[in-house]
Amino acid sequence: MESTILYVIPGVGILGLIVMAVQFAWVSKQEAGEENMVELATHIAEGAMAFLKAEWKVLTYFAIVAAALLAWSGTLVETSSPVIAVSFLIGAVFSATAGYFGMNIATKANVRTTQAARTSLKEALKVAFTGGTVMGLGVAGLAVFGLGSLFIVFYQLYVVSVGGSVNGVAMEKAIEVLAGFSLGAESIALFARVGGGIYTKAADVGADLVGKVEAGIPEDDARNPATIADNVGDNVGDVAGMGADLFGSYVATMLATMVLGREIVAADQFGGLSPIILPMVIAGIGIIFSIVGFMLVRISDDKGNVQKALNIGNWTSIILVTIACYFLVTWMLPAEMTLRGRDFSNTDVFLAILVGSIVGALMSVVTEYYTAMGKRPVTSIVEQSDTGAATNIIGGLSVGMESTLVPTIILASGIYFSHYFAGLYGVAIAAAGMMATTAMQLAIDAFGPIADNAGGIAEMSGLPKEVRERTDILDAVGNTTAATGKGFAIASAALTALALFAAFVGLAGIDSIDIYKADVLAGLFVGGMIPFIFSSLAIAAVGRAAMAMVQEVRRQFKEIPGIMEREATPEYDKCVAISTEASIREMMLPGAIALVTPVVVGFAFGPEVLGGLLAGVTVSGVMMGMFQNNAGGAWDNAKKSFEAGVEVNGKMEYKGSESHKASVTGDTVGDPFKDTSGPSMNILIKLMSIVALIIAPHIAVKSASHSTSVDITPPPAVERVIERENV
Amino acid sequence: MESTILYVIPGVGILGLIVMAVQFAWVSKQEAGEENMVELATHIAEGAMAFLKAEWKVLTYFAIVAAALLAWSGTLVETSSPVIAVSFLIGAVFSATAGYFGMNIATKANVRTTQAARTSLKEALKVAFTGGTVMGLGVAGLAVFGLGSLFIVFYQLYVVSVGGSVNGVAMEKAIEVLAGFSLGAESIALFARVGGGIYTKAADVGADLVGKVEAGIPEDDARNPATIADNVGDNVGDVAGMGADLFGSYVATMLATMVLGREIVAADQFGGLSPIILPMVIAGIGIIFSIVGFMLVRISDDKGNVQKALNIGNWTSIILVTIACYFLVTWMLPAEMTLRGRDFSNTDVFLAILVGSIVGALMSVVTEYYTAMGKRPVTSIVEQSDTGAATNIIGGLSVGMESTLVPTIILASGIYFSHYFAGLYGVAIAAAGMMATTAMQLAIDAFGPIADNAGGIAEMSGLPKEVRERTDILDAVGNTTAATGKGFAIASAALTALALFAAFVGLAGIDSIDIYKADVLAGLFVGGMIPFIFSSLAIAAVGRAAMAMVQEVRRQFKEIPGIMEREATPEYDKCVAISTEASIREMMLPGAIALVTPVVVGFAFGPEVLGGLLAGVTVSGVMMGMFQNNAGGAWDNAKKSFEAGVEVNGKMEYKGSESHKASVTGDTVGDPFKDTSGPSMNILIKLMSIVALIIAPHIAVKSASHSTSVDITPPPAVERVIERENV
Repeated sequence: MESTILYVIPGVGILGLIVMAVQFAWVSKQEAGEENMVELATHIAEGAMAFLKAEWKVLTYFAIVAAALLAWSGTLVETSSPVIAVSFLIGAVFSATAGYFGMNIATKANVRTTQAARTSLKEALKVAFTGGTVMGLGVAGLAVFGLGSLFIVFYQLYVVSVGGSVNGVAMEKAIEVLAGFSLGAESIALFARVGGGIYTKAADVGADLVGKVEAGIPEDDARNPATIADNVGDNVGDVAGMGADLFGSYVATMLATMVLGREIVAADQFGGLSPIILPMVIAGIGIIFSIVGFMLVRISDDKGNVQKALNIGNWTSIILVTIACYFLVTWMLPAEMTLRGRDFSNTDVFLAILVGSIVGALMSVVTEYYTAMGKRPVTSIVEQSDTGAATNIIGGLSVGMESTLVPTIILASGIYFSHYFAGLYGVAIAAAGMMATTAMQLAIDAFGPIADNAGGIAEMSGLPKEVRERTDILDAVGNTTAATGKGFAIASAALTALALFAAFVGLAGIDSIDIYKADVLAGLFVGGMIPFIFSSLAIAAVGRAAMAMVQEVRRQFKEIPGIMEREATPEYDKCVAISTEASIREMMLPGAIALVTPVVVGFAFGPEVLGGLLAGVTVSGVMMGMFQNNAGGAWDNAKKSFEAGVEVNGKMEYKGSESHKASVTGDTVGDPFKDTSGPSMNILIKLMSIVALIIAPHIAVKSASHSTSVDITPPPAVERVIERENV
Repeated sequence: MESTILYVIPGVGILGLIVMAVQFAWVSKQEAGEENMVELATHIAEGAMAFLKAEWKVLTYFAIVAAALLAWSGTLVETSSPVIAVSFLIGAVFSATAGYFGMNIATKANVRTTQAARTSLKEALKVAFTGGTVMGLGVAGLAVFGLGSLFIVFYQLYVVSVGGSVNGVAMEKAIEVLAGFSLGAESIALFARVGGGIYTKAADVGADLVGKVEAGIPEDDARNPATIADNVGDNVGDVAGMGADLFGSYVATMLATMVLGREIVAADQFGGLSPIILPMVIAGIGIIFSIVGFMLVRISDDKGNVQKALNIGNWTSIILVTIACYFLVTWMLPAEMTLRGRDFSNTDVFLAILVGSIVGALMSVVTEYYTAMGKRPVTSIVEQSDTGAATNIIGGLSVGMESTLVPTIILASGIYFSHYFAGLYGVAIAAAGMMATTAMQLAIDAFGPIADNAGGIAEMSGLPKEVRERTDILDAVGNTTAATGKGFAIASAALTALALFAAFVGLAGIDSIDIYKADVLAGLFVGGMIPFIFSSLAIAAVGRAAMAMVQEVRRQFKEIPGIMEREATPEYDKCVAISTEASIREMMLPGAIALVTPVVVGFAFGPEVLGGLLAGVTVSGVMMGMFQNNAGGAWDNAKKSFEAGVEVNGKMEYKGSESHKASVTGDTVGDPFKDTSGPSMNILIKLMSIVALIIAPHIAVKSASHSTSVDITPPPAVERVIERENV
């Protein structure tokens, strides 16, 4: 039983990858359209690959140095091993591969979606969404396959081969080494997210500022030298960055649950492994039901409701997975378990999973409310655009800050109730339950930028108006799913970070993180500051790179005669190079902060202060993430409201009005918020927690040797008893 | 010895008030200028009084209800008394009076500064700064007098009369009742700060949007119907709001130190009172040396450096107070003390005070760097204005977020080291040391809006250009001092909140706040969210009220013929009424959140979860305060850079350029940041901590009765010993 299920896990991962390959082949064999469309698509694909290659080159150096440090650190404590470096490198390569899969399919699916849109909306949706499923299955398949097979290897190597206990130090070592996989994945994710985010927004902001505002040409006009960079950005930021991000979350969630699961002594039919492997099995179930859900995403004709089709697919897979989890949990787990003094049953574990699913669903609903057209928040921004850009921006900032209220209460309730049902294991498994349908979530997420690109290609190659109209329908849905996807991502990151936090406390050998202690409180303050400085760096990087882009575009308009008359082709590659170089250069410092801070604080001040730091980062990061994502999403849709025509203070306003211009300024401010700094918060909080987890055995040793704060004096009554006995 | 020093404390408070009266008389007897100037000043003074009266009316209802609740709650536990309601009401009245003193003098000093500026800069500085000293002495004098005399009353009533111990329950009751004074002061401060902040920014933003942008008339032009409201706003927001804020901080800091001081058993010459009364004595010393410093603020002629004059006065008083503290501490305190298991000497206490002074000074320096013209942060915003409002705003947001880095490290170090020297008492006394020169800080702060108003009156009454130039010099210095004052205020609020936090833990009968517990962590999340929703409400209120103002001004321009030709007087009072009503209405909800949340959380989830909530509010509030204050200050000075003329990317740019227009948008966005929501963060974090302190005895009882989390099982080894003994 034990070995069967162990081998089933990577098997399901491979199944996911096989389905992915089938979907990939289907998309590839669709028609790519006429020569000029293919040429534009090739420009985009080449730009995207150029970025990935440049990024990988830099990250290779990073990975080698980090692996060397990890290998060395692995020799220092008994519960780790130099093999952690191998695990780390595999995680890094898998994460990069997941991003590559997504980008490769996205740059094929975009032009094929455009071509399909010449026939019907139905076909266009099919191509775009199938492209998304390739991404979703790639990420989920690689994660389950990678983690599942490495677990088998390390379990055999460190536990079975020495006859170690499932709950003992041997298993602790196996999971510590496995944590390297998660660290590798999350490190690459951070750089991909930040680098991709800077890339896409530098190009977008730069293209808009000169193109739309100064030269008065529409978005995605082929005369704009930055337009290719802008479309490349959709792929490297929204596709590759998002893919690496969710790959990291998915792996980290499973890992955190496994760390806690190891502490549970379970009398089950799997040799006590059930609490450890449960999160991987749930992920496997999630892949299968995501594939089921994929089949339901379809519309019958051009009047079909695309959003509804996506919702049906999404909800079907979520509900099926939740139902399956009930049977899975009662079958796999023993009836009663104990973790760090807390007793709970297998039904309690299921209830915790249910809490996770509900939290994920509610977070998406609230995020949609705050960023959807026609709802109160976006409408308030629309109205405030009437008195100019300043009030539009004040309105957006206010909406973004307000949008933290309900999600925080949902999240706090989620923590409270998942813990209420099944202790710390409950918090972790709630996150795992929420992340189970990652393949579906990502398919929906990746569909957005594919549709966006398809629209860009339609515009640039001057296709008939109805083609652009069809891609616009898909794009509008994509904007909503992008916002809800971010709500889901931040909720999962928060729960994952908490699970990692709990895992860290266990491994670090402490039993409380008491903010009443001055040094722990100081750590909390410093932690609370990090998301601010991280966001500042990311936003400033976009600002700087966008200015360089503006100057380059202005130069081309001035120095290359005939661009405006479509007689000369702009030098697209110059703009691509600006975005590529800026993003690679600017992602370094934020990345270093996330990786180095926990190490420095942990070694200098010990695990409890590091715990305070992590709590500060998590709380502040969740707030800043929601604030920035939702403000950006709301500004974007306030602008789109004008483009569709909207009633403001009793009169209709359209594209080109003064209010619309004010809303364009707001949207531009929101761009780095919602696509660079906001989504990076997820990875920041997870990565810092994983780093803490990795160094936990090291600082636990250190802190135990010079701890003076533990009160080891027995209480007077007991002392007396002992004395008497000695007499 | 004991009673002498007790009576000296309120005596020094009275001394401060007497000097205040002398300064007030001097300002009053200065020339107020010609009829039209006096008329404008009267409009402003009447508008300000109208606001204060409307505000007081609402706050009277609030105070009566709150006092009734407090009186009832005072009957429930042994360590409180219904008298706490009286204490609360006195605090509320004193706080309102402090605001009134400041506003009264500011609306006299403004026009007299204008008149003096017709003679020389030297005279103008003298009038404006003397006006500021009246405010500073009023606040500090009332605080020391009020707290000092109430302490004598409650000490006699609850301790001496029953022969209670200085460290016992009797004294706990005396200080709990005294805490009502601080609660009253801080509650009024919150409403004054938020209400005043909404008032001033609604008028400012509204006046600018129609006046400068649409009608093209300069700032402070008498033809603008909102201009009187704008000038009133400077007084109710920047003067009365700031006065009530620092009054609250000053009192809360002393109180928190007194709560902790009660736990120290001190063999001193003051009957063991020295650790309790020390903060009040330091405040008294601070008043005396602030008066000394006042005398040094002067320039010899029109070429004198105003900033330098203020710095000399400020630094002299800070250094003298610090030196005096050394002698004071070694004289008053015993050589060795113990608080909650931590031993420290009186020299350690002095070192903690020194830490507080250094933290305060460094915070001001860093804040100045981030908001001063010509330094890197503001220059980067200036450069980003070149590509429009969007990049200007991205730049400002980035600067604001970045500005949290160094101050947080300073603050965290301050917590660490003050605790290192003298435990929790060290943290509290560091705050008290920092706040000692509050009279001087406030004099410098209040000088800014007086100068601002003086310039407004000069402009509105069409005085010669050199008068406006002189007031502009004062105004520019005032802008810098406003920024540094806010840095000081947030640092003091943070330390005060921590001291209150420590005091709360003691009174609530818990000995840790462990964020490893799921419910405490959930509390931390909810707490971290509150500054966001609070800021959102404040900013949105300004946006709404500004829109109403814009519509009213547009209406007047349309319906009242001859305004533009200066043939008709605008209806100033209509605009004053809009700001007044909006601010009163909109201050309710944020105020209620601050007051009600700790009560609900405390009673529903117990003291430890409330502790988590407070930590979340404090960390997040400090970050949001610094972010918003500094972003707003930097935007403001980026705009001012253009008005003075600045080199951008190789060419000079001035007022009226496209870049300047972009910077005006940024400044408008920054207005509610730096004058409404940002400065409210200070009060929010202090007020919530004080509410927690007040309810601590109530929830401590409750939590002890249903606590189940305490592990009372003795360890196995001991159990065996006990069993064996029983055999």
